Amino acid sequence: MPADENGRPEAGEFDIIRRHFAPLTRDFPGSFDLRDDAAVLRPGDGQELVLTADAMVAGVHFLPDDPASDIARKLLRVNLSDLAAMGAQPLAYLVTTAFPRGTPETWIAEFAAGFAADQQVFGVHLAGGDTVSTDGPLTLSLTAVGTLPIGSALRRSTAGVGDLIFVSGSIGEAGAGLNLLQGAAAVPGGEQLVARYRLPEPRTQLGPALRGIATACIDVSDGLVADLGHIAEESRVAATVVLAKVPVSAACRLVSSPAEAIVAGDDYELLFTVKPEDSRRAEAAASAVGVPVTCIGEVGSGGGVSVLDADDRPITLPRPGFRHF
Amino acid sequence: MPADENGRPEAGEFDIIRRHFAPLTRDFPGSFDLRDDAAVLRPGDGQELVLTADAMVAGVHFLPDDPASDIARKLLRVNLSDLAAMGAQPLAYLVTTAFPRGTPETWIAEFAAGFAADQQVFGVHLAGGDTVSTDGPLTLSLTAVGTLPIGSALRRSTAGVGDLIFVSGSIGEAGAGLNLLQGAAAVPGGEQLVARYRLPEPRTQLGPALRGIATACIDVSDGLVADLGHIAEESRVAATVVLAKVPVSAACRLVSSPAEAIVAGDDYELLFTVKPEDSRRAEAAASAVGVPVTCIGEVGSGGGVSVLDADDRPITLPRPGFRHF
Repeated sequence: MPADENGRPEAGEFDIIRRHFAPLTRDFPGSFDLRDDAAVLRPGDGQELVLTADAMVAGVHFLPDDPASDIARKLLRVNLSDLAAMGAQPLAYLVTTAFPRGTPETWIAEFAAGFAADQQVFGVHLAGGDTVSTDGPLTLSLTAVGTLPIGSALRRSTAGVGDLIFVSGSIGEAGAGLNLLQGAAAVPGGEQLVARYRLPEPRTQLGPALRGIATACIDVSDGLVADLGHIAEESRVAATVVLAKVPVSAACRLVSSPAEAIVAGDDYELLFTVKPEDSRRAEAAASAVGVPVTCIGEVGSGGGVSVLDADDRPITLPRPGFRHF
Repeated sequence: MPADENGRPEAGEFDIIRRHFAPLTRDFPGSFDLRDDAAVLRPGDGQELVLTADAMVAGVHFLPDDPASDIARKLLRVNLSDLAAMGAQPLAYLVTTAFPRGTPETWIAEFAAGFAADQQVFGVHLAGGDTVSTDGPLTLSLTAVGTLPIGSALRRSTAGVGDLIFVSGSIGEAGAGLNLLQGAAAVPGGEQLVARYRLPEPRTQLGPALRGIATACIDVSDGLVADLGHIAEESRVAATVVLAKVPVSAACRLVSSPAEAIVAGDDYELLFTVKPEDSRRAEAAASAVGVPVTCIGEVGSGGGVSVLDADDRPITLPRPGFRHF
């Protein structure tokens, strides 16, 4: 964790690192307590590393007065969700923070405590990073590192015609929570929806469990339809979803219709395809890690995503979900 | 390279990625053309990966009107310097960018062109990242990945009493360049000093060449005295430098005295220790990769850094260089 001549936060970059971030490296020797120029990571025999990076900006990806620990945890979790979508087991992360000048050290302590809590939940370790000051909003970037057996990564581009489409958990709750934060009328169970938006539950156990079973996989961050579109585009196939099969919770329905739920974002569920003969194996693997999965449609030839109503008629979606393909 | 529901730059995150960043992944299959959730990296047999991350903010680490390509290259190079300090060979990088709203696509194209140029220079590949918008200044974060044989990383904490202290290249030029940018009187050769500040030359060939020879190594980013202090602190030894031996160029001396040069930052030279009997090997290894190295002092018992004049009297430095240890 090297320092720049300029740009240290007021408390002193080194003090901040020693007090709040170095303790997060405990029991992870490759991080050298953040006292060296870089971290050293060694995948086990026959393993390879999976890397992903996401950035978040105050006022864009979270509210400046969100709890500091939730901000840290969301930053980590959205990256762990990307690892899960590849089938990788979380190992470590590097984080860079641009703190607004004058950020109280108590805030930074709470931010680091969020990471500490999630390190316990997900078995992941801080390996490095950088801390600088900014005149702008709090800006964060996190690189997550996972491992998987060589050649076993789950891809977006490998869905096949005839495969069944599954999704984990339920869809639309985070979007409904965001609607509530943005002023939608309060509903029973609304707090749970807001919590779902603030603190995603990445499917870090399901992803690795699907290696060798799922033919393609992605995490739902842009919305179910848009992300299924990514699989369709990369795999050069068509995807058909039956709206009534999409798992949308009762609480969510009080705020968002199912058609709205499938174009909302931030679900961080896994959306994956399996050969029909493997659907029982997929359900068993998901059940073994305690995650519900639901078959919502199937893969055909052609391109694009179609959403059907109960009478097999295509539904017109409330928002375009197709702009990227 | 996943997308967030919010925070896309105006041209569309996906368009920006496809047009400007995806081409940087060419010939690096593990990046999947940025079309998947994460990158897959496989170190060779007997190799491990080295990871480091640095952030840069406009107005703090560079000037908002610096050339876009120089900003990209500096961001990459300061990270490659950290890899070099560990003895690692550059392999790949992930970059996250928070672009101010309304950043012209021509600017982003020039920024990506800077990466493209340095990918050729350093043999490194884009493996992933994220692109978001901000209401604040341009904020960048880069994670660099290198490789080295298992167990061969150069550390800060392994200098031994009696070792000789070497530094590569010359010290103080970048600091002198910054002084010129901040209004110091123009001097002959000043452009070269400014170029040295804007575009560091990470010692990516020297670092790996020093594996098995150097007993400790760090890159000089905080200033020679401060970074030698990190080695002294982590190795629990004292370091003594003879000021007259420190390589300070004639052009640099027109702006900064040697005593100022050793407390200026941004040199991105390698500062390393070797056993006396290995000093010829170190010089030969450096010479083989075309990098001059100079013996500037030695390691003793105790702690801290002393700088001596030609009569072996301790020099009082113009700025405190010791605050971190």
